[in-house]
Amino acid sequence: MTVQTTTRSDEKYLARAIDIATQNVKEQGGPFGALIVTADGQEFAGVNRVTANLDPTAHAEVSAIRAACTGVGSFDLSGAVLYTSCEPCPMCLASSLWARLDRIVFAANRDDAARAGFDDAAFYRFFDEPQVRDSMLPVAAVPLDDQTRTAPFIEWGITANRIEY
Amino acid sequence: MTVQTTTRSDEKYLARAIDIATQNVKEQGGPFGALIVTADGQEFAGVNRVTANLDPTAHAEVSAIRAACTGVGSFDLSGAVLYTSCEPCPMCLASSLWARLDRIVFAANRDDAARAGFDDAAFYRFFDEPQVRDSMLPVAAVPLDDQTRTAPFIEWGITANRIEY
Repeated sequence: MTVQTTTRSDEKYLARAIDIATQNVKEQGGPFGALIVTADGQEFAGVNRVTANLDPTAHAEVSAIRAACTGVGSFDLSGAVLYTSCEPCPMCLASSLWARLDRIVFAANRDDAARAGFDDAAFYRFFDEPQVRDSMLPVAAVPLDDQTRTAPFIEWGITANRIEY
Repeated sequence: MTVQTTTRSDEKYLARAIDIATQNVKEQGGPFGALIVTADGQEFAGVNRVTANLDPTAHAEVSAIRAACTGVGSFDLSGAVLYTSCEPCPMCLASSLWARLDRIVFAANRDDAARAGFDDAAFYRFFDEPQVRDSMLPVAAVPLDDQTRTAPFIEWGITANRIEY
């Protein structure tokens, strides 16, 4: 990771994300908090509710993205910044890409998370070291002819009122 | 990706996932469908609702994971298999890791998705080519002292009734 420049307001928002994370532990959530600030200054918080909501995807960052999208009425958060109490895991990074966030600022790092008992560091290895992937989560293609394999895309292509993203 | 062995029942479930994807296009959803089959044979479908629900994380695989977790009453899907109409994007792969899925079987690949206009292939580059990351989504740490940076983990450590995952 390259060192990026951060600002005083970045530090202010990040302190808020850390406070949100600490408060969430007191409310039976995981020790993670996030804050999305849109280009026009709207703020949307998210907390980790994996165990509380029985949802392994309910990381603070994903929760903040979903809240912000609902709040602004769009699946596209271009121009927004994500502040998160801890370095985002690959799921949260990829969710941020799909949400078209402008940038991410974080506090604790993946090693801090590992010391607290979370698997972020292990899951980074899945993406960084292709040779470990099969032992962690085998992913297999079933060979199918073009027509069968791409049937949903063919239907998509002939759908006049499709909403692209 | 190594070639994995798949079975006749894999092919049956995968055909279902493809049908679910095609049907979803007819219901104003994206051309993606998924099916999770638990170790004891329960089935949970998921479809892409990104534009319909204004949720960039509502990929078919994530939707299926959420539905399966709600259905079985756990944030842990160990023993379950994910069948998906298209090769999962990095968000869906990492979500599957967090959900502790046993394995994934898919039909269409990332190039098929790219030809249909979806950014999965571009987002794989974010993980596969570190040199492109900053231009796609800058991720920056604010340097903070240990106590400030890890405050949520400190609170977590002193919380007696914490639920680990």
